[in-house]
Amino acid sequence: MPGTPDFAERVARSFARQGLMETIGARLATVRPGEVEIVLDVTPRVSQQHGFVHAGAVSSIADSAAGYAGLTVMPAEAGVLTVEFKINLLAPAAGERLFATGRVVRAGRSIVVAQAEVEAESAGRRKPVALLTATLMAIQGRDGVAD
Amino acid sequence: MPGTPDFAERVARSFARQGLMETIGARLATVRPGEVEIVLDVTPRVSQQHGFVHAGAVSSIADSAAGYAGLTVMPAEAGVLTVEFKINLLAPAAGERLFATGRVVRAGRSIVVAQAEVEAESAGRRKPVALLTATLMAIQGRDGVAD
Amino acid sequence: MPGTPDFAERVARSFARQGLMETIGARLATVRPGEVEIVLDVTPRVSQQHGFVHAGAVSSIADSAAGYAGLTVMPAEAGVLTVEFKINLLAPAAGERLFATGRVVRAGRSIVVAQAEVEAESAGRRKPVALLTATLMAIQGRDGVAD
Amino acid sequence: MPGTPDFAERVARSFARQGLMETIGARLATVRPGEVEIVLDVTPRVSQQHGFVHAGAVSSIADSAAGYAGLTVMPAEAGVLTVEFKINLLAPAAGERLFATGRVVRAGRSIVVAQAEVEAESAGRRKPVALLTATLMAIQGRDGVAD
Repeated sequence: MPGTPDFAERVARSFARQGLMETIGARLATVRPGEVEIVLDVTPRVSQQHGFVHAGAVSSIADSAAGYAGLTVMPAEAGVLTVEFKINLLAPAAGERLFATGRVVRAGRSIVVAQAEVEAESAGRRKPVALLTATLMAIQGRDGVAD
Repeated sequence: MPGTPDFAERVARSFARQGLMETIGARLATVRPGEVEIVLDVTPRVSQQHGFVHAGAVSSIADSAAGYAGLTVMPAEAGVLTVEFKINLLAPAAGERLFATGRVVRAGRSIVVAQAEVEAESAGRRKPVALLTATLMAIQGRDGVAD
Repeated sequence: MPGTPDFAERVARSFARQGLMETIGARLATVRPGEVEIVLDVTPRVSQQHGFVHAGAVSSIADSAAGYAGLTVMPAEAGVLTVEFKINLLAPAAGERLFATGRVVRAGRSIVVAQAEVEAESAGRRKPVALLTATLMAIQGRDGVAD
Repeated sequence: MPGTPDFAERVARSFARQGLMETIGARLATVRPGEVEIVLDVTPRVSQQHGFVHAGAVSSIADSAAGYAGLTVMPAEAGVLTVEFKINLLAPAAGERLFATGRVVRAGRSIVVAQAEVEAESAGRRKPVALLTATLMAIQGRDGVAD
């Protein structure tokens, strides 16, 4: 998986432009080749009706983690778009913080498949709460899509 | 599809408790038996890095629309949890507003399948931007899950 | 949705080369622009352990129906590959025959999204048993992939 | 993950009743608690139009592998039904044999999530060709569903 030497800065710059991440209170934790971790504080701002984190908020950080894992292996001029994803909610998302870790499963010429695992941390212990699989498309030479 | 006489109030009360919907600026539009529509204003608060609406925000309103469509057909004592969903992003989500319309596909004893279509409105015209399929589980007698 | 004038013959020729369709006893029923129907006789050859049709056989005809619906809207030199699909099994697949109807949801430049509904016919009545959503990729100029 | 002492025999007996597995030429390879492997010979009987293994045949062994991985962790009186699955086709499935390995991701009271990886073996080397995620439902006390 090639990517570019400055992959971590690319991801950080792009993440900073994702308004939704700031809105829900998510932040970029770690960026490695083929792997990206995003953290979300559990607050009422991201809740569903029973007080758990809304599946949409869980999906948001999982999708970004998977997409940016994909971006770390892209050539400099290519961006990445989510074509589709599927997420299983394994357990109610509760605790203090969620960690979404995205990893590249397969990087093809035009299609990249990535997964993200989401864990909830409570009193220092983590347990899995969601599993996402995403199909990403490498985009080259389309206006406004270079990350 | 039975549901309860006060299904619209049930959905409205529950929606009002979803902190994420307020955080991203989504609001409940219409509630009919087996069908629920949610509206989201397109603002930088819900953007991804290219300025389109983030797939996570699109998923959030689509998941809520599908889940609440399911709730309209549930008995009074039953709540609904999303087991999993899959979403295809059909086109970049841009424009002034997004409309997510959830509809029940099949209501079984314990499993409800629902779909949501998301359309983007721009200059008075709507075009489809996403299609979600969700598997919901009817929950009875579990503490804190009655909607 | 353009496609080619001889789309129905293209689909029929390609279908005849799908060994799996013959092996499980599936046949092509109707081919229209953007819509293809496949029929499968319910026999013990396609069963799972409880005597219903195996989810894999249901998926096989649904995937072919969705894929060929996509092929009807492709230019002459392009083939189609399934990138991924998701299927919900709505009810046990029993009866005399299954009908899988694939329809194009959105045909983009490189990505086509299609759905297939599968119905089971029993004593002249049909009921839905499965719903599939597929992401297809248009392939041009790759050896051996022109349908 | 509990399951029953005779889980391997349970899976073998049930697999032997899946007509589809015999029809496509699949056989049960290994059964461990929470993990099941199924093998499929690559022959024209399971092909699609380009000579690769049909996505439906790949899905069939992956679904059975995931489902039986789930069955190994079920109590004696419970059976398992596939509620839905999603599969990504990572590469054309070609070679001499396919191996589908199903593993339980999470076993809840009523819902079990399992994944299956499919690899193609060619000249003694294996490469991944598909990744499936399935939602299974534990069924108790329903006529005819005890495996």
